[in-house]
Amino acid sequence: MGRVTERRRVIRIRDGAVSSRPDTLVAEEPLEIRLGGKPLAITMRTPGDDFALAAGFLVSEGVLASAGELANIVYCAGATEDGENSYNVVDVRLADGVAVPDISLERNVYTTSSCGLCGKASLDAVRTSARWSLDTSPDTPVRIAPAVLSALPDRLRAAQRVFERTGGLHAAALFTTDGELLDIREDVGRHNAVDKIVGRALQEGQLPLSSCVLMVSGRASFELAQKAVMAGIPVLAAVSAPSSLAVDLAVETGLTLVGFLRGSSMNVYAGEHRIALDAAAATG
Amino acid sequence: MGRVTERRRVIRIRDGAVSSRPDTLVAEEPLEIRLGGKPLAITMRTPGDDFALAAGFLVSEGVLASAGELANIVYCAGATEDGENSYNVVDVRLADGVAVPDISLERNVYTTSSCGLCGKASLDAVRTSARWSLDTSPDTPVRIAPAVLSALPDRLRAAQRVFERTGGLHAAALFTTDGELLDIREDVGRHNAVDKIVGRALQEGQLPLSSCVLMVSGRASFELAQKAVMAGIPVLAAVSAPSSLAVDLAVETGLTLVGFLRGSSMNVYAGEHRIALDAAAATG
Repeated sequence: MGRVTERRRVIRIRDGAVSSRPDTLVAEEPLEIRLGGKPLAITMRTPGDDFALAAGFLVSEGVLASAGELANIVYCAGATEDGENSYNVVDVRLADGVAVPDISLERNVYTTSSCGLCGKASLDAVRTSARWSLDTSPDTPVRIAPAVLSALPDRLRAAQRVFERTGGLHAAALFTTDGELLDIREDVGRHNAVDKIVGRALQEGQLPLSSCVLMVSGRASFELAQKAVMAGIPVLAAVSAPSSLAVDLAVETGLTLVGFLRGSSMNVYAGEHRIALDAAAATG
Repeated sequence: MGRVTERRRVIRIRDGAVSSRPDTLVAEEPLEIRLGGKPLAITMRTPGDDFALAAGFLVSEGVLASAGELANIVYCAGATEDGENSYNVVDVRLADGVAVPDISLERNVYTTSSCGLCGKASLDAVRTSARWSLDTSPDTPVRIAPAVLSALPDRLRAAQRVFERTGGLHAAALFTTDGELLDIREDVGRHNAVDKIVGRALQEGQLPLSSCVLMVSGRASFELAQKAVMAGIPVLAAVSAPSSLAVDLAVETGLTLVGFLRGSSMNVYAGEHRIALDAAAATG
């Protein structure tokens, strides 16, 4: 539990000089997520925040949308062949009266790094299963100034605790539209980092995250855009490039998608009505 | 088919100046892989080399190990609701007499970005299902000079055709131990890039790739180490960090794992008997 990093012996070669020394690596372990005792998905993750990860994964899959729908999450004792607790298997139990999704969910759950269905079908699935609109007050949408967005990457980096030691972690962070850091999670899988943030918000009764910005350290894939939409987050910002399908999903759902957020530059791929462009022009 | 990039309108903000222009994005689309007509896995990939991707995926899963075991791969016509060919569903048919794996494979195939099973079980699975040793001649193992490794990142970068246009692609390349580029593939998913390389090698009857080096543009996860082992590739080199489980797998299988390959520096995490350290020291 909580083995965020591990030590391994490494042979270093530096300009021809060979030395042996211990090195810190990001921990990667499989987590099996069960729902009502039934295996649902396996993801390779950095241990820690496993209950939040499981809860957030189920938000992304459309199973959970509020803390009240969740009864509890436990590590499965006796999960290994020799009856020990590996802390790599969690079981999520839904509250009484919450329907356990039918077997067709299994198809969705091949996914961790994919959409689970063919393009059109999966885009449809996101639209139908999201339980809230991205604008709770459509007349006064969330607005964020470019200068606030420009400050986020440095804040994300400053808050990344493990990355500098291992170089091997993705980070996701939740900010207010004023740029205040609300939460940050690091993981060997970018989708896990987002699930951990969303799951913790669910556990604390904060969904939908309708006045927040999700910032990710790398690229914006379809999957990450989907997770933002499912959590009700109206703005997704990425340090690097989005994919075509992430942009398509953002356009269809009204998600604001910002990429290549570096220095005072950024690209807005969708949902520009939430970006205070007048502020940008005024300072230009 | 072959939609490696797509164009989208983007709003650019640069130091306060706002402009609208077309932007090139990496294409991301789901690919459903069927085996004998039965859905097996879905991965989000960059279209192109889909048959190689499917074949390589099945090598990674231990289903295929030689071209002779493969009958054919086709795009499924009528894969969409309205009966059109989406070019996002492929069906792999095995040669007569090749056993279609039993249903338990389904468990493994939740995986794309994960291992498919709990830690120990999955490590065991890799060992038992790999059909060859990484050293075809154990007395004279493949050896590679640090200087050759140091040259690979630049060669990989020089050969990356799409990355510079989109900033959104992972690359994987296959080199000889003399540093000669044999193949390169780019994809929105790093595992897909490796599967495409391995699948093409299978189709051309080149497995196991026992005198090759696999170089990846990012980090070395468990999954990528597993794919190298399953393809019989003895050396995996990454620009960035490996995970703990990737190192563990490399140690257990004898894979040479090099990380942080930058300039004349690198870290060797496992299988150092294949690195000509004397050459490194001699030039130091």
